[in-house]
Amino acid sequence: MSKQTLDDFRDLVRKVKSYEEALAVMYWDLRTGAPKKGVETRSEVIGVLSTEMFKLSISTEMGSYLEELSQADQLESLDEINRKLVLECKKEYERSVKIPPEMYQEYVVLTSQAESIWEDAKRASDYAMFQPYLEKIVDFNQKFVELWGYEGHRYNTLLDMYEPGITVAKLDEVFDELRKHTVPLVLEMKNDPSKLDTSFLKQHYDVSKQKEFSLFILKELGYDFEAGRLDESEHPFATGLNPGDVRITTKFKPYDIAFALFGTIHECGHALYEQNVSSKLIGTPLCNGASMGIHESQSRFWEIYIGSSLPFWQKYYNDLQRYFPEQLADISVQQFYRAINQAQPSLIRIEADELTYNLHIMIRYELEKGLISGEIQVADLPRLWNEKYEQYLGVKPSNDAEGVLQDVHWAGGAFGYFPSYSLGNMYAAQMIHALRLQLPHLDTLVAQGEFTPIKEWLTEKVHQFGKLLTPEEIIHNVSGEELNPAYLVKHLTSKYARS
Amino acid sequence: MSKQTLDDFRDLVRKVKSYEEALAVMYWDLRTGAPKKGVETRSEVIGVLSTEMFKLSISTEMGSYLEELSQADQLESLDEINRKLVLECKKEYERSVKIPPEMYQEYVVLTSQAESIWEDAKRASDYAMFQPYLEKIVDFNQKFVELWGYEGHRYNTLLDMYEPGITVAKLDEVFDELRKHTVPLVLEMKNDPSKLDTSFLKQHYDVSKQKEFSLFILKELGYDFEAGRLDESEHPFATGLNPGDVRITTKFKPYDIAFALFGTIHECGHALYEQNVSSKLIGTPLCNGASMGIHESQSRFWEIYIGSSLPFWQKYYNDLQRYFPEQLADISVQQFYRAINQAQPSLIRIEADELTYNLHIMIRYELEKGLISGEIQVADLPRLWNEKYEQYLGVKPSNDAEGVLQDVHWAGGAFGYFPSYSLGNMYAAQMIHALRLQLPHLDTLVAQGEFTPIKEWLTEKVHQFGKLLTPEEIIHNVSGEELNPAYLVKHLTSKYARS
Repeated sequence: MSKQTLDDFRDLVRKVKSYEEALAVMYWDLRTGAPKKGVETRSEVIGVLSTEMFKLSISTEMGSYLEELSQADQLESLDEINRKLVLECKKEYERSVKIPPEMYQEYVVLTSQAESIWEDAKRASDYAMFQPYLEKIVDFNQKFVELWGYEGHRYNTLLDMYEPGITVAKLDEVFDELRKHTVPLVLEMKNDPSKLDTSFLKQHYDVSKQKEFSLFILKELGYDFEAGRLDESEHPFATGLNPGDVRITTKFKPYDIAFALFGTIHECGHALYEQNVSSKLIGTPLCNGASMGIHESQSRFWEIYIGSSLPFWQKYYNDLQRYFPEQLADISVQQFYRAINQAQPSLIRIEADELTYNLHIMIRYELEKGLISGEIQVADLPRLWNEKYEQYLGVKPSNDAEGVLQDVHWAGGAFGYFPSYSLGNMYAAQMIHALRLQLPHLDTLVAQGEFTPIKEWLTEKVHQFGKLLTPEEIIHNVSGEELNPAYLVKHLTSKYARS
Repeated sequence: MSKQTLDDFRDLVRKVKSYEEALAVMYWDLRTGAPKKGVETRSEVIGVLSTEMFKLSISTEMGSYLEELSQADQLESLDEINRKLVLECKKEYERSVKIPPEMYQEYVVLTSQAESIWEDAKRASDYAMFQPYLEKIVDFNQKFVELWGYEGHRYNTLLDMYEPGITVAKLDEVFDELRKHTVPLVLEMKNDPSKLDTSFLKQHYDVSKQKEFSLFILKELGYDFEAGRLDESEHPFATGLNPGDVRITTKFKPYDIAFALFGTIHECGHALYEQNVSSKLIGTPLCNGASMGIHESQSRFWEIYIGSSLPFWQKYYNDLQRYFPEQLADISVQQFYRAINQAQPSLIRIEADELTYNLHIMIRYELEKGLISGEIQVADLPRLWNEKYEQYLGVKPSNDAEGVLQDVHWAGGAFGYFPSYSLGNMYAAQMIHALRLQLPHLDTLVAQGEFTPIKEWLTEKVHQFGKLLTPEEIIHNVSGEELNPAYLVKHLTSKYARS
């Protein structure tokens, strides 16, 4: 192998990654307070740099480096990082060059329009407005699948973009198992609603105090403020520019203590992942999460299994009471714990509790699968949506705004993304089970605010590898077995079964 | 002229400008709170994008577009904006291609090292540490001048980078005039120091209240928060990404009410300029200030002639007292006005008042001029510096940290920059004089907080043109004459003469 080719390839990869960081800073800036009159010019700037980045990633240089370096004998002579890097870039390259540039350009414009139309359609609860756009988007995605090729189900190719290696066959299996055990729990609740009073969570909570408490909890969890910062945005997110700069945002609601608090812990989970990726991967696309599902497992791990646990609040509830004595002085830690963990069937995914959340995802998964295979028509979505909500959750949307129009994902063309959320939940349950075998006194550690052993374990098993391992390798590394929904089923059953 | 060439040229120019905005966002981010562990990777990202931007600006495409479009007949067929744009890009292009890339690269590395060494040298007050770097930097600049060519004095070529059209001949003339009238005023003060008690400015002023008051004043002055934002940074600055996004920063000192307040008004002046550049210039290098001097005139206009005036505080002093009753209840508006305008000779430029400021600049100007012509040796700088401070200001640095090492500019190679500060002061005085002829009741307007007519006049005469006009054309537009130091002399004399 020519050392020069490898060096040139690495330089080109680093260059692409530099554009990616610049774009990430600009997006972060747009979402955390960029002045609105600059948005139009900024969008053009983003367009120019995105195009340049895309050109580099499908350049003839990239093509020829990849062709040379991906020869079997060449690959063998590379160290692990370079080998995986070549394979990752080759996968991206081949995906990109298979789409004619004009077609891709048309699709970008379409989804950008569709997102704007979707906003209006949702506001007016008018599915007919959005339907023609969605039809075109589905059509494009069907064509992309044709161009990219597929094995087994057509939807597999889209799933692979977010969760490499996952298939319809596997998802059908794990979702069946999960649904079989979850639906009865949910319908039981539906028929006998909880009498729990959770109204104290919705009192007035001073926003600046909420912020102070969020910062306090982030420090306790070990979020590294020298490698990140907390800002505010309309929709909370985490963005990793590089392992030394992983930013999170939250949204403080003046009449809701739970929203920002658990949102912050959720984003902190994402951030702890990227802050602890090996520095050897900096400047490459491997310096990233292994998949959307593994990423979500980290956020849910901290949000649900640590941050919503009784031991955690045994440690921190006094602090929270000190911040909000008027609101919480008369509320016990047990009351607080039960209130933040209350489950009940509802219509809106992003407000759903951990028990019902996966049912929201399964509904979307089943619809996406059918749309891409052609078995479901876009025109039938609202009816099918409502039927499935009634069947799985026992609730029925009164209009499409709180039904099929609630999420932006389809307007953006992100078919294959939704399952990641439930995969994250399943991975997280499987991980916490494995961790308990290693650290039998986990609850005691959490109750003492001792998170270092937990983070070290996650870094050793998950974080450090970035995208060097597949999701399958990661979960096997962690637990010694493949993805297994039994752990999540067990967790949900023991937490939410009435009897 | 080929319409196609013009379109392609404009696209390329827009592309370069897009890199510039991306870089500006990243610099702004680094200076307003980017996490420190990400700085190393960020520097590489900035390096990659700067290099790409530079390559575009000296690309063969750029060269051939400019060659075609700058033919006399072609130029004539262009509208004014495109014509000036071609000329501006041609000037930049020719300057850039005349420097061999390796030489430029070496210089970039040198100044980057020198800035870091300068920090250490200043801290240790050890000029010998810094001297060899400065010698190399001066040497490079002399070579650049050779490569770029020069008319009259060699230093003219460097001046032209910051203040197009200004020459040593002109500067010698206006600085002589200014010095002749200022030095006696300063030495008079030195010999009979003011008895004014200004200590109330240095009480404890709560930083969050300072911030609220700064935001209030910015709104009053008409800074457009939909096209900008206020942040905090170690050194205050303004950065215009585009006219819809012109950001400013300030630094709040807990024991100094004046620093952040007048710093904010100063940066607001810079920002009002760029927020009001014509939208026709967006996406071009003409969407910028006409020069560093004209830019500084706008900041000084608002800081000195509006924000430090008695009418301004007759309007706003009650508000300030309301924010800080403990500190200011017993201080009259006259006392406040006199305190913020107190002048006295001092060693440090950035802390200097408006009377002595220009003497600091002249000293640097005279030294730079001699360094570039070869009449002054780097080794002699500390001695010459101290002599001039004694001669012009009657003060003598006790070490080089508060003398020749105080400013970063030379470490960064910015020879020719310093005179802009004084040019700004002269332009501002000339402008306010012209404005008073148009608005005889200016003081009444200011005392009523009516700034709209002032801003409209500045926009009409200065802001809208961006870099479409030369500094000379701007000042002629405003005042009907060329740069004339008499207005500043008159202002300073009437404000600061004892008798």
